[in-house]
Amino acid sequence: MSASNKQMANAIRALSMDAVQKANSGHPGMPMGMADIAVALWSPASGLFKHNPTDSKWFDRDRFILSNGHGSMLLYSLLHLTGYKLTMNDIKNFRQLHSKTAGHPEYGFAEGIETTTGPLGQGIANAVGMALTEKLLAQEFNKDGHNIVDHSTFVFLGDGCMMEGVSHEACALAGTLNLSKLIAIYDDNGISIDGQVDPWFTDDTPKRFESYGWNVIRNVDGHDVAAVKKAIEDAKKNAPKDTGPTLICCKTTIGFGSPKFQGTDKVHGAALGAEEVAATRAHIGWEYPAFEVPQDIYDAWDSKTTGAAAQKEWQERFNDYAKKFPREAKEFTRRMKGELPADFDKAVEAYLKTCAEKAETIASRKASQNAIEAYAPSLPEFLGGSADLTSSNLTNWSTCVRLKPGQWGNHISYGVREFGMSAIMNGIALHGGYLPFGATFLTFSDYSRNALRMAALMKIRTLFVFTHDSIGVGEDGPTHQPVEHTASLRLIPNLDVWRPCDTTESVVAWAQSIKRPDGPSTMIYTRQNLQFQKRNATQTKNIAKGGYVLRDVKAAKEKAQIVLIATGSEVDLIVKAADVLVAKGVSTRVVSMPCTNVFNRQTAAYKKSVLGEGIARVAVEAGVTDTWWRYQCAAVIGMECFGESAPAPELFKLFGFTVENVVNTALSVLQ
Amino acid sequence: MSASNKQMANAIRALSMDAVQKANSGHPGMPMGMADIAVALWSPASGLFKHNPTDSKWFDRDRFILSNGHGSMLLYSLLHLTGYKLTMNDIKNFRQLHSKTAGHPEYGFAEGIETTTGPLGQGIANAVGMALTEKLLAQEFNKDGHNIVDHSTFVFLGDGCMMEGVSHEACALAGTLNLSKLIAIYDDNGISIDGQVDPWFTDDTPKRFESYGWNVIRNVDGHDVAAVKKAIEDAKKNAPKDTGPTLICCKTTIGFGSPKFQGTDKVHGAALGAEEVAATRAHIGWEYPAFEVPQDIYDAWDSKTTGAAAQKEWQERFNDYAKKFPREAKEFTRRMKGELPADFDKAVEAYLKTCAEKAETIASRKASQNAIEAYAPSLPEFLGGSADLTSSNLTNWSTCVRLKPGQWGNHISYGVREFGMSAIMNGIALHGGYLPFGATFLTFSDYSRNALRMAALMKIRTLFVFTHDSIGVGEDGPTHQPVEHTASLRLIPNLDVWRPCDTTESVVAWAQSIKRPDGPSTMIYTRQNLQFQKRNATQTKNIAKGGYVLRDVKAAKEKAQIVLIATGSEVDLIVKAADVLVAKGVSTRVVSMPCTNVFNRQTAAYKKSVLGEGIARVAVEAGVTDTWWRYQCAAVIGMECFGESAPAPELFKLFGFTVENVVNTALSVLQ
Repeated sequence: MSASNKQMANAIRALSMDAVQKANSGHPGMPMGMADIAVALWSPASGLFKHNPTDSKWFDRDRFILSNGHGSMLLYSLLHLTGYKLTMNDIKNFRQLHSKTAGHPEYGFAEGIETTTGPLGQGIANAVGMALTEKLLAQEFNKDGHNIVDHSTFVFLGDGCMMEGVSHEACALAGTLNLSKLIAIYDDNGISIDGQVDPWFTDDTPKRFESYGWNVIRNVDGHDVAAVKKAIEDAKKNAPKDTGPTLICCKTTIGFGSPKFQGTDKVHGAALGAEEVAATRAHIGWEYPAFEVPQDIYDAWDSKTTGAAAQKEWQERFNDYAKKFPREAKEFTRRMKGELPADFDKAVEAYLKTCAEKAETIASRKASQNAIEAYAPSLPEFLGGSADLTSSNLTNWSTCVRLKPGQWGNHISYGVREFGMSAIMNGIALHGGYLPFGATFLTFSDYSRNALRMAALMKIRTLFVFTHDSIGVGEDGPTHQPVEHTASLRLIPNLDVWRPCDTTESVVAWAQSIKRPDGPSTMIYTRQNLQFQKRNATQTKNIAKGGYVLRDVKAAKEKAQIVLIATGSEVDLIVKAADVLVAKGVSTRVVSMPCTNVFNRQTAAYKKSVLGEGIARVAVEAGVTDTWWRYQCAAVIGMECFGESAPAPELFKLFGFTVENVVNTALSVLQ
Repeated sequence: MSASNKQMANAIRALSMDAVQKANSGHPGMPMGMADIAVALWSPASGLFKHNPTDSKWFDRDRFILSNGHGSMLLYSLLHLTGYKLTMNDIKNFRQLHSKTAGHPEYGFAEGIETTTGPLGQGIANAVGMALTEKLLAQEFNKDGHNIVDHSTFVFLGDGCMMEGVSHEACALAGTLNLSKLIAIYDDNGISIDGQVDPWFTDDTPKRFESYGWNVIRNVDGHDVAAVKKAIEDAKKNAPKDTGPTLICCKTTIGFGSPKFQGTDKVHGAALGAEEVAATRAHIGWEYPAFEVPQDIYDAWDSKTTGAAAQKEWQERFNDYAKKFPREAKEFTRRMKGELPADFDKAVEAYLKTCAEKAETIASRKASQNAIEAYAPSLPEFLGGSADLTSSNLTNWSTCVRLKPGQWGNHISYGVREFGMSAIMNGIALHGGYLPFGATFLTFSDYSRNALRMAALMKIRTLFVFTHDSIGVGEDGPTHQPVEHTASLRLIPNLDVWRPCDTTESVVAWAQSIKRPDGPSTMIYTRQNLQFQKRNATQTKNIAKGGYVLRDVKAAKEKAQIVLIATGSEVDLIVKAADVLVAKGVSTRVVSMPCTNVFNRQTAAYKKSVLGEGIARVAVEAGVTDTWWRYQCAAVIGMECFGESAPAPELFKLFGFTVENVVNTALSVLQ
């Protein structure tokens, strides 16, 4: 006799409470509460969730996102039970150093984890990005009778995700874009960490999602597997239509099965204790010892056979497609691998040459757009966008197609939704098939900051473009003038922050960001014009090292030596200051350092060759100075206060970004 | 004959387009589109907006928030026309250096600006904070027949604010808390910067706000002054009830009056051009030259008489109240001035003594709670809270009253809404009467970052508490372990960042944050226990200087000297390392630097007295190292990568926060 749904769910409950008990830390409440929902979706008998445990990277699998990531034991239980490479030993090592089963699901740690979740609200936004990617790839690659792209995106989410603002941003856009193959299941248990939610959370959530254009299925009993299954089936019927995503609202009891704690916040984030674990076992009728699952329950969960069959069926379809559409199949395969086209480096070299010839003095945001324009023909995976600042950020290009509901496009107006955009872009990068980039003003990187951190933590290739990078913004004033942002972004581990000084550096920043295999990059561009700088071949090559010697001029009658370092708009300032200093007998080296993160990763020898040794250094950047002291600068010209509302040239003067001040500062440190 | 509503609105249109034209930068579209709505609300003939231009700080004025702050010329026009200290010359100096009329409304620049807006969505959240404060103060101070607190909060907001996630967080909570005296007017013009909003913004906004429990007035013609007036009157009828706030949805035409550009994104953020300005003048029937307003229109707008009468009427009521309730009136007056009670310093001194006596080794989050507990009796203005982590952040205290809808309280469960909480707290601080503090995990300071920046920019006393401050979080893993956050918060100009090392420093951090008159502070506390450190009176006093010498031990046979610097959980580590170093003949000074921002503001002499001169320095902090190089450290022990999921003690060892590593690093820099 096959195992009952009840016992399949209890296997999750037992593994979850036992793992949390052993680690003496973790969140048993959610997995115990959502176990029945998980059975409805993941049970192979349901046939609702398409995946292959033996090939977790199979392209056309359904995506599953645990947006309420603190309930990680739910996902680990499912991966273990259905047949992924996640052993009982891994479960026993829950939350231990270097185990696959970290406190929150970490992308790359165990097969089957589609994204890192825990910071609430971002999982659902990632899922929106994945569902959007699926839809765009289907529109781009599917042919009549050849649907090689055809999968759903499932999300579990709780009250926390619902309260977070990013859920508003992402779900509103998902509704507008008719992502009908996105199915979100809401764990409506009425409890958050502060207790029963009535005093702080009374949204009519179904109505809210209807206002976004979602299809909402209300009042499902989350402990009735058949009811949940029926709801998911109904949601899937919605999928082929060009309508909104579906939200299934399930009423559940948090910590379901714990006689003492179920339905209370006590079961949310702490071990139950040995006594209550035993009481729960008795209460739910789970008679097996900790970390033991009987074979019939493993058999009922095992999804390897159904998964392999599903993948085989798809592979045959794909082979058929490849025969009929070999060019498209090849391109599809390359895109899904995330490989760049063979001619990309050539495109970069060619455009660098053009830049040098043109020697244009333009805003770096315009230089950035020119780089996009130059690379776009080689990179059909480009999927650009902006948080409602397209004409300011200049992240569109002449041949881009603007995304509209119901139509394919490769430039997205994300709306005034910086955080949503960034988390959606992470979902796009995680799904694969497109290379996402999106932009806003640098000052509003604050709004999206944790999504940048998540990209860095997951080591994925999301490109964040930020324009209007300093007091150079001018009249819009201090709210719109970044002061601390460039320095602050540099602090995020594994995020490369580029602040180019002219067209050539802008083009290299794009190339390096695109080529980087193991993490996100951000590119920071100006509103105002930047002087073109001449370089020889070696200098141009060294831009990719993050910092290099741009000028090195010996004074005729040398009285002293100095190294000046700058980025972006301040590079031309130190070039001009260098001329004055040389005339005054100070041999001056000009270092341009467009990416400190990359420069810091260079060899000690290279770094020394750039920064010199025993020579005084002065750094200049229109922002806080903290980045620069690690290079043992004798002085840093920067800002320790907010900007002002006034024309930009007045502000650069007001805050000391003048040739005179650089020269005087350099001379003062030489005394 | 008195001026018509139409001409009153045209005065705003003319001033706005002329000021933008003169500055050749700015946003004419919104003021021109909302001018009629502004007449409906602000016209003295309407009698709907209670304010006194000659006393902009009158306590019981209605608050007006321009959440779509780019339309600043609307506000400047209103302040000028109704009689505030804002001259035509100020209008002419729109967006010029040090003028009152900055690109976006800047709090403190001109009287009548209630908050700085521009970063979208935060204005409406500030307004929620103000309306909440009004409600709480009314509950606390009003007596039967003596309503000394009785004003409304009005907000203008546009599509951008509606798309931002923070609007979801703040408005959902406002609905739950029944802030019926909050009236928001939505400028539904269907245009954002990327154009006509249909491809990215299709929310059914009225339905969305109804789902939050708001009272929604739909389909108001925003160019029909009588209709808008009627809607506001209806909204005010809602005010005395214990129900949700009101949203008035006004259909408008952006840039109303510009024949060529109205109803398009072209009029949003750029000057119209001389020709179109002239065409608009003709089109709207405004025959006066730039920066000229005829006397009859000034007369119609002048609100000084009605304002003075309203204030006088209130003052009489307050005088009556003061006679009957002298104690309450005195307390109310103190609170509204933002003055601390006379005995506050005594409470601090007393509790510092207790701390020294108890010498407790506890988590600093617990030490923080103890400080709150100790200060609460002296500070009835305390208004604490947490973003759904009360039991983790420990920002509640034994006598606090939990806020519930319909009941007064001084501890708020903000829900999982970090950004909303922070922007609401800014509104509370701006309104006056309470001292807001709220908490979340340090890693989620990312979500709320721009609200901290706004508090710093506005120089207001909002207190941000962040707990779970490092890899000391342990098993929850890298998503929940701050690495870059402490350093990153220090970069925000005018934000003081405290990271105390024990109970005594925690108590001082609270005291200094509370006493700081000109800006926000953040306090960063641990999950794990921290060793108590002994101090003499001078040392205890010097904590307030941000950094001080905690130990200074000369080795018996001195071979070398070193200065070790740390904060928070790493202070005890360097104290222990110092013991080892001294035994090895290295005279070692231990510097505790709980607040680098405050330390950096000390005199050069003091800083030298702490850091020494010509002695090698090593800093230790469980986070990125960038803060420390400015102190010319020879080495910094920190982290350049994300954390891991594992028990905290294992992580401190893994990442080199051990006595052995500190000692070896110190010895290596001495070689």
